[in-house]
Amino acid sequence: MKILSIKANISTFLAAATVASGTLLVSPASMADSRSSGVVSTSQSTVVVNRAITKEEVLAAQRAWGDALVAISTTYETKGIEAARALAEEVIDKAYGYQFGAVLFKPTLTLHPQTFRTTRAGALAYFVGGDPAFPVDKGFALKGWRKVEIKNTGIFIAGDTATTMGNVILTDKDGKVVTVDKTWQFLKDDNGNLRIILHHSSLPYTP
Amino acid sequence: MKILSIKANISTFLAAATVASGTLLVSPASMADSRSSGVVSTSQSTVVVNRAITKEEVLAAQRAWGDALVAISTTYETKGIEAARALAEEVIDKAYGYQFGAVLFKPTLTLHPQTFRTTRAGALAYFVGGDPAFPVDKGFALKGWRKVEIKNTGIFIAGDTATTMGNVILTDKDGKVVTVDKTWQFLKDDNGNLRIILHHSSLPYTP
Amino acid sequence: MKILSIKANISTFLAAATVASGTLLVSPASMADSRSSGVVSTSQSTVVVNRAITKEEVLAAQRAWGDALVAISTTYETKGIEAARALAEEVIDKAYGYQFGAVLFKPTLTLHPQTFRTTRAGALAYFVGGDPAFPVDKGFALKGWRKVEIKNTGIFIAGDTATTMGNVILTDKDGKVVTVDKTWQFLKDDNGNLRIILHHSSLPYTP
Amino acid sequence: MKILSIKANISTFLAAATVASGTLLVSPASMADSRSSGVVSTSQSTVVVNRAITKEEVLAAQRAWGDALVAISTTYETKGIEAARALAEEVIDKAYGYQFGAVLFKPTLTLHPQTFRTTRAGALAYFVGGDPAFPVDKGFALKGWRKVEIKNTGIFIAGDTATTMGNVILTDKDGKVVTVDKTWQFLKDDNGNLRIILHHSSLPYTP
Repeated sequence: MKILSIKANISTFLAAATVASGTLLVSPASMADSRSSGVVSTSQSTVVVNRAITKEEVLAAQRAWGDALVAISTTYETKGIEAARALAEEVIDKAYGYQFGAVLFKPTLTLHPQTFRTTRAGALAYFVGGDPAFPVDKGFALKGWRKVEIKNTGIFIAGDTATTMGNVILTDKDGKVVTVDKTWQFLKDDNGNLRIILHHSSLPYTP
Repeated sequence: MKILSIKANISTFLAAATVASGTLLVSPASMADSRSSGVVSTSQSTVVVNRAITKEEVLAAQRAWGDALVAISTTYETKGIEAARALAEEVIDKAYGYQFGAVLFKPTLTLHPQTFRTTRAGALAYFVGGDPAFPVDKGFALKGWRKVEIKNTGIFIAGDTATTMGNVILTDKDGKVVTVDKTWQFLKDDNGNLRIILHHSSLPYTP
Repeated sequence: MKILSIKANISTFLAAATVASGTLLVSPASMADSRSSGVVSTSQSTVVVNRAITKEEVLAAQRAWGDALVAISTTYETKGIEAARALAEEVIDKAYGYQFGAVLFKPTLTLHPQTFRTTRAGALAYFVGGDPAFPVDKGFALKGWRKVEIKNTGIFIAGDTATTMGNVILTDKDGKVVTVDKTWQFLKDDNGNLRIILHHSSLPYTP
Repeated sequence: MKILSIKANISTFLAAATVASGTLLVSPASMADSRSSGVVSTSQSTVVVNRAITKEEVLAAQRAWGDALVAISTTYETKGIEAARALAEEVIDKAYGYQFGAVLFKPTLTLHPQTFRTTRAGALAYFVGGDPAFPVDKGFALKGWRKVEIKNTGIFIAGDTATTMGNVILTDKDGKVVTVDKTWQFLKDDNGNLRIILHHSSLPYTP
């Protein structure tokens, strides 16, 4: 079943996130001057700790976000709101950086004066609703999403953070398509996982 | 005159940007254990190079952006489009990070398929128009802006980059007010200046 | 007793390290243009997450290292080697970054081919000895240290890491003084604590 | 001739450094969900600005340092001290980060109270001597070096800086070999070049 396979994918994502460690490579790294002679380079191992963010990690984190959104939708349909909420909490705790103190999150459809969601509670309410403190929220992740396509216009990797900008194209179970303009910033945590510390999503401007 | 004073402010901003250097402090830093005796700590200077971004630098960079927008509007009105374009180019070259290769820029009012402006030319066209390659652009900075108010919801400083999210409230010469949801990411350059490497601006969602 | 007060200090250090969180400030941050009129700036709070390293954090981390060295010496004398080893393990786990995969550690007195200690075991052996895998190590932290004075020549804060270079002057219980040239690099972890990821210590050159 | 080839290599290094730009890649990056159907992913380019430091860049910067040291020696022998000094100045200006305000530099053979060289003048004096402000310096780079071998024990890449630790083995024209324990920290500048901001070199400890 497609739903199951997506859920398995999400489980793998969450499991991986808990065991992932920093990027640690031990590689042979004899760096003797190959142009020279007379000095024998003893074989040697160099320990490399590389905390720089790669483009591949960024794409994987985006993909995980999309898969998580679909998984919350399908979990809601097959297991109900409590299961969906539990999954949403797991996703937020694995994929966002609220433990750093706050996340700069402007979801697509929020309204003043609750446009910005810097707290975990505000993010959860947006995704699954049901929080009287955020009465307008109906649960964006519950809208029957089936597919998330990501088209990056640009990726800017600056040290230990990476930022992406582009379109995210959401398709629901009825084939309805919504395109948003989306920016994400990721920070690599101590375990080597990318966490969203900024998320600005908006509908395209229509004159 | 108000216009003149704002222009002086902008000139100062641009001049400052060219001479600004890295944050270099030389401070007395005898760190002898004050609880102990028997060891005389000779007086000493510690050279401190601090490339971390401060909140004050972020606020100043935001303010400079707002002042620059107003200055382009008033320059346009008093000196015409060529002077406005020249000033806009100066502002882009001082305040944005196109020299790093690209900027992730989603202006408020752009349309598909030119929504995102990763090049300097695309940014310039958005601000002052007149570029046949961007035929829809009429020049956002030419719209008679008189005041820019910035209300930050959050600031996230992560090493050598800082990100802000919040509302920017623009007032034009007729008192018309436009509020946008805006995200900026700044990177500190070699000279210690903050440069915008990400700029996502959007109109508030209306159901 | 002096020994007790130093130990209390270390306990505070270790306790603090476990509860410390990221730097999270909520401050009033109305940034209305004070030069303008006509727009009322509503009062507002800005959430600020600041992960930049400050000079004060660097000095505190250095001081904690010095206090820990003295504490291991005095613990060894009053409670024996097992207590000293347990404390050394605590110190390494709190103050070094071995959990990132490796630390670049060149202690003062190590010998080829075990000059460099990239593993936690190698660091522990250097500080308290007793590891047959490092047979030369006698336990540097067991040498009766009473005072650690730090004289920084320079501090370079670059984003989320900070590096220091200067002299560290160690005094033992007999008043013997040893001066070393020392470099440390610190990385701020997810909890906001500085961890040593580089430590190069060497005796001054003597012709 | 070997000398010429090394000099050509250095020239290439210096020339490259002046024109090098940030890492800018334009790559096809359609990220459509290949598991799905029904949505056509239009072809698309993603602009990627990647300022993260790679292991390869670190090794190249180390190699350039070694080549530069040999080049200064051979330039001194074939063209004299003025040419050697001019080359040393070029090397310092290209490979070190004094323009950030200071470099944390502890050369191998310096003596108290001039052990640490945080200024460009102090670095130049160490490499080529002849500065009355640094009367002990005889010019380390003038000692007839012919080969520099680098054996990294560890490399730690943390965002926009990278640190290395290991042995550097220097061979002079008479075949004499000197091994030092060396730590370097590199910072990527606005043009994408790695610059040394920390350099701690010491002779191995001998009991």
